[in-house]
Amino acid sequence: MQNIDGMIINNEITPDRLKSSVGEDAAFHACVHKIRSASGFSFVMVRTGRYIIQTVHDAKMCGKGLDKLKEGMYIELCGTVKEEPRSELGVEIVLKDFTLISRPAAEMPLHVSDNALGCSLDTSLAHRTAALRHPKERAVFRISEGVVNAFRELMQENAFTEIHTPRITSYPTEGIKGAFPMKYFGDDAFLSQSPQLYKQICIAFFDRVFEVGHAFCAEKHNSARHLNEFISLDLEMGYAKSISDIMSTQTAVIKYIIAYLNEHYSYELALLSASLPEVTSIPSVTFYEALDILKKPHEQVDLDPTDDVKISEYAKKEYGSEFLFITHFPAVKRPFYIADSTDDPALTESFDLLFRGMEIASGGQRIHTYAEQLAKLERSGIDSEELEWFLSSLKYGMPPHGGFGMGLERFVMKLLDLENIRQASLFPRDMHHLIP
Amino acid sequence: MQNIDGMIINNEITPDRLKSSVGEDAAFHACVHKIRSASGFSFVMVRTGRYIIQTVHDAKMCGKGLDKLKEGMYIELCGTVKEEPRSELGVEIVLKDFTLISRPAAEMPLHVSDNALGCSLDTSLAHRTAALRHPKERAVFRISEGVVNAFRELMQENAFTEIHTPRITSYPTEGIKGAFPMKYFGDDAFLSQSPQLYKQICIAFFDRVFEVGHAFCAEKHNSARHLNEFISLDLEMGYAKSISDIMSTQTAVIKYIIAYLNEHYSYELALLSASLPEVTSIPSVTFYEALDILKKPHEQVDLDPTDDVKISEYAKKEYGSEFLFITHFPAVKRPFYIADSTDDPALTESFDLLFRGMEIASGGQRIHTYAEQLAKLERSGIDSEELEWFLSSLKYGMPPHGGFGMGLERFVMKLLDLENIRQASLFPRDMHHLIP
Repeated sequence: MQNIDGMIINNEITPDRLKSSVGEDAAFHACVHKIRSASGFSFVMVRTGRYIIQTVHDAKMCGKGLDKLKEGMYIELCGTVKEEPRSELGVEIVLKDFTLISRPAAEMPLHVSDNALGCSLDTSLAHRTAALRHPKERAVFRISEGVVNAFRELMQENAFTEIHTPRITSYPTEGIKGAFPMKYFGDDAFLSQSPQLYKQICIAFFDRVFEVGHAFCAEKHNSARHLNEFISLDLEMGYAKSISDIMSTQTAVIKYIIAYLNEHYSYELALLSASLPEVTSIPSVTFYEALDILKKPHEQVDLDPTDDVKISEYAKKEYGSEFLFITHFPAVKRPFYIADSTDDPALTESFDLLFRGMEIASGGQRIHTYAEQLAKLERSGIDSEELEWFLSSLKYGMPPHGGFGMGLERFVMKLLDLENIRQASLFPRDMHHLIP
Repeated sequence: MQNIDGMIINNEITPDRLKSSVGEDAAFHACVHKIRSASGFSFVMVRTGRYIIQTVHDAKMCGKGLDKLKEGMYIELCGTVKEEPRSELGVEIVLKDFTLISRPAAEMPLHVSDNALGCSLDTSLAHRTAALRHPKERAVFRISEGVVNAFRELMQENAFTEIHTPRITSYPTEGIKGAFPMKYFGDDAFLSQSPQLYKQICIAFFDRVFEVGHAFCAEKHNSARHLNEFISLDLEMGYAKSISDIMSTQTAVIKYIIAYLNEHYSYELALLSASLPEVTSIPSVTFYEALDILKKPHEQVDLDPTDDVKISEYAKKEYGSEFLFITHFPAVKRPFYIADSTDDPALTESFDLLFRGMEIASGGQRIHTYAEQLAKLERSGIDSEELEWFLSSLKYGMPPHGGFGMGLERFVMKLLDLENIRQASLFPRDMHHLIP
């Protein structure tokens, strides 16, 4: 028998830590990212889990020759930290020694040490395990992490409980056309398109809930803004009196995320030359106002992607905002659980949030009484029996509530001005990619 | 056009907030949980998103009659906070007024206001949307939340990056028998059993990663400790030199979670009469040592659930620990990515963590070189072509690494001494439950 103490070795090298150890020795693990020869010495840029650190190899100072170093090797290195204003982090490390830990078995198929990958998206996706080693490619996912952290932190500060709801479900909440079917011990099941009905159920006992998790969409889109598997940031809040409460929350979430990224992810934002929007408030227009702005007839029942782009441009020019809420969409295009507008039952208490020309979130006030939900299901021609498991929650009583779902990859794509949503997914799933 | 400011209404009532407002009025939303008449007045226990708060209805003090209140109603209430040492929170609220917000349409099918639900698990699962309103039932999921929060917080403090990897995958990492098959645009796909290979790929560029997400297991277990969909807490760390590093991390995770729950979830722990274990270190025995303790022949290649129970009892008695590591399992029962032991290639650098008689986590050192992984695949008779997407990562170079996966529901089940794992899943999926 042996006793295992609890300890996590953490030798993370941060710029701050290096700056405060000028003149001292530092030892850490890293990957040899790029070797560049200068006169009489060489720059050996090394990659840690987050940073690229400049080290200098000078045969006079280092116990081992440069010929022992190759790009892609993982090494343990030791050297003296020196101030160097011309380096990116303001410091460099003069190598004294290094030890090989692991060497690659093949040449990298992509130029991961170049300033940009410089290949097509298809090529980058075909060599995903190499492409993600590029500092700019991986930085996107640090930003994703930041978005999720900020969302969670704000939720927890405001009494939202984090939940985990099923991904294997009996009912295709957003329509059977967009759901992946599967067999579950002989029964027909569907991969969850959204935690919608489950988060509503939880309102009855947690008041406020949120979930960060996978959502699946089987629609055969082949566009720059669709994935067939994505991460959804969902919240639902009880006692919401109207969509104003929910849009206020949505706005607070956006502001919090942007402030959080600026505070904690400035390294990645600079690396990606990202300019985050400044948000104080978000303008909101109704669906009909939007149609008027777009000079489209009121017979239209939804906005298409081109409309989204145009109305976003208008909002930027006229309201000075890169975000725009559009509210009160026609009921015919909104799901059964959305509350009808009291002013006009053909419309709904719903909203979309557009950002830089694209819908990134969608939400609304929900129906919270059993009678109203039954009536709406009947009007919509939906069999209420299949939904008994959900309806029972309304039957036993629920406070008024509403919420929204926000697509992580879409938000990150737009935040970083990426051309394609696949760049914002570690291992994207689309019609042509089940691998890696 | 309207401008939406960012603001989240947060009127959460906490015991501390109530205690500091004795003598003042408080107004908040709640659900009428239980009404109990006393002489000349009635106790109206109300349920907020987290607490049960004692209010008192006295016709002389309250503008509205008790006949207007029914269990299950959601109300807005207003009253004066009074010190009351006999109440659970040390305070009570003398009602002055209340307003009905929402009323149930049907009687509750379960006794959610009783001290315990008092029905069978089957009944509770059949009426899940009602059962979860019971304070003790929902408290389990606050503990789950705490476990996940603690895990994430510790990970982030130690330079682990949070990742999201696919749930629709091309390869059944843990064996085809236990994988749910599905069709993905004409291709054969499987629901992810574990993020294992993806988290390994990420080690190449993030050094340390973790993920909290759904995992799926299609095995036809029908036991108190199996779910077909569960939440897995996964981590993988680069530059781990041996399983000692990983077991140290695992031990640190356990200690951190327990301290975190004691600090932030004492309300729920008391409600559930849970006694969390005290952990300073965790004893570890090898697989063969375990067999010797169990008086079983060394020909045995794995431990069964009964062995787990027995060896746990032994560890508690002999080592005073409710946790126990078992290491160096025979290679024949461990997956292809686990490193063989250098001492004995028939064994592996693997471990299981047992807690109160059940395996709650499993981990190990991984193979990190291309050549070694190819050789092991060949020895195991696995076609390496299907794994090219994973193997390419080893080919381009990886540091040594290892990690573990921990089942959230199993850990919570054992922490809270629940009889059945289904009690630790909001909407459990088993062979008989696809609904709700």
